[in-house]
Amino acid sequence: MNNEHIKQLGDAIKSVKSGEVKNFYFVACGGSMALLYPAHYIYDREIDIPAAIYSSNEFIHRAPKALGKGSVVILCSHSGNTPETVKAAEFARGKGAITIAFSNLVDSPLWKAAEYPIHYDWGQDADAAEENNGMLYRLIFGILEEVISNEKYGRALKNVDNLQKIYKYNKEATAEAADEFGKKYKREKLIYTLASGPNYGVAYSFTSCLLMEMLWINSNAIHAGEFFHGPFEITDYDVPFIVIKGLGETRPIDDRAHVFAEKFSEKVEVIDAATFNMEGIDEDLRGYFAPLVAGVILRQYADRIAEHTGHPLSVRRYMWKMEY
Amino acid sequence: MNNEHIKQLGDAIKSVKSGEVKNFYFVACGGSMALLYPAHYIYDREIDIPAAIYSSNEFIHRAPKALGKGSVVILCSHSGNTPETVKAAEFARGKGAITIAFSNLVDSPLWKAAEYPIHYDWGQDADAAEENNGMLYRLIFGILEEVISNEKYGRALKNVDNLQKIYKYNKEATAEAADEFGKKYKREKLIYTLASGPNYGVAYSFTSCLLMEMLWINSNAIHAGEFFHGPFEITDYDVPFIVIKGLGETRPIDDRAHVFAEKFSEKVEVIDAATFNMEGIDEDLRGYFAPLVAGVILRQYADRIAEHTGHPLSVRRYMWKMEY
Repeated sequence: MNNEHIKQLGDAIKSVKSGEVKNFYFVACGGSMALLYPAHYIYDREIDIPAAIYSSNEFIHRAPKALGKGSVVILCSHSGNTPETVKAAEFARGKGAITIAFSNLVDSPLWKAAEYPIHYDWGQDADAAEENNGMLYRLIFGILEEVISNEKYGRALKNVDNLQKIYKYNKEATAEAADEFGKKYKREKLIYTLASGPNYGVAYSFTSCLLMEMLWINSNAIHAGEFFHGPFEITDYDVPFIVIKGLGETRPIDDRAHVFAEKFSEKVEVIDAATFNMEGIDEDLRGYFAPLVAGVILRQYADRIAEHTGHPLSVRRYMWKMEY
Repeated sequence: MNNEHIKQLGDAIKSVKSGEVKNFYFVACGGSMALLYPAHYIYDREIDIPAAIYSSNEFIHRAPKALGKGSVVILCSHSGNTPETVKAAEFARGKGAITIAFSNLVDSPLWKAAEYPIHYDWGQDADAAEENNGMLYRLIFGILEEVISNEKYGRALKNVDNLQKIYKYNKEATAEAADEFGKKYKREKLIYTLASGPNYGVAYSFTSCLLMEMLWINSNAIHAGEFFHGPFEITDYDVPFIVIKGLGETRPIDDRAHVFAEKFSEKVEVIDAATFNMEGIDEDLRGYFAPLVAGVILRQYADRIAEHTGHPLSVRRYMWKMEY
């Protein structure tokens, strides 16, 4: 981060003043929305101010009446060009809300639309602490530190600096499992994902962006608790599931879905945060950081399906190719 | 409704006092949670108090910090026996929240757990105005009438009385289309649903409860706006979609998904609220009542798949048959 980026982040954090916030909205589309899920979860857990998450277009057309002065709207678009998210920022700002937007591209339309734009790094040489998830966590724990007195948030901010090391370690540790997964599942036409709590967003982005968008494999990110209220009836010996198991308070929900899936399907792949190396993340904060690590591991799983099927993750038939 | 049921509803409405409410939570599992979606939508639109919806188990384990005195928690379980929802009511009540619970079964565990239980009718002879959706709308518009001065809510309450007539008319008007659908789609292994705004819940329950649970057909309720941020890449000439199109402010989101689906798939079924007979529902309130009608129509579609496949909607392999 250069000085300007540090200042952007600091300005955004300082814009949120204790006692003046009525509610938080997390607003984006697709993978960027999924990225905001853990932040929504952390705010639900840590602060007694209501928070909600919406897809940008739903947010604009739904136009929640609680949106206005005293609202803090946190948005994200990698390119900063997603029209719905740009409009959502303009809409929220017009209503008097504080708008904070993450974008890789400085001076993008989203950058200009939001009151507080924040740059994040991306690419081979980027440090994880300065990528999208790292910067988002800096913001959300930074705001918590500013408005609530609890030493834990300062520790969380320090933990962000260790993301790069953790990503690297866990990617290496799961490389072989990912390759086996790619080989075993390469002919599947449908793979379900299961998760809950802070990890639901990772299941959602793996389903929507990696399986459906990039690999053209049918999927549904089933909430592990909701599984038992309908969807579990499609379970059979040959129906594949990826179960993402988190740490902490929502883990019992994942455990229950995992036990059931294992019992009736022969194709269950588990991404279990209890097996992650989380050295450098404080024990009491690991549940919040687990989805970030799960996301990195799952990306590698998708890479290996791509490799074994010969269908690169970069292939699209509609996206970026036409007006829609 | 007998006098006791009228009193229950009235007591629940009067428990919500203007100026004392901090936030609303809608909490249930599966189809009952889906039922609460339009209520969540209506509250987002009509009242400047934040509202959120959670699956019961997620709600309990997530334990939002904003839950407490000043929270109103609206729950539902048909049998009143869903353990997660019973626990959610106890949990919320223990935190000092007002708890209002719908159940068909009087004196069920949920009935006893909630401070304000409300009975709804069910079965062949029930009037739609006294079934789950009808009673829920009586409650939510009743509360709005109590805390906000707007003549529209009184009209909405009167409109509820016409649900039975509307259901009957629209069921009859779509009986043939439903049968054609059942015949045409009976060999499909996967059918996607698309919806947004107040209709997303109907897509969710059709996907989770009717297609996956009752018919063992794979599915995913894709938000019509999110469709373009990943999932739409699985669209192909032979991929079936049911597009639920609502009325009013979120209809442009549905339109866009519909146009795209029609362009690239030869298997698109549209449930379009603009074609519903909504006589007896005031023009400005039709968008809020449309999901209820769409639900009745979709149920008939599921009935006809069941008929053509010979797989009755009552068949289960896991639910009610074992511990899970």
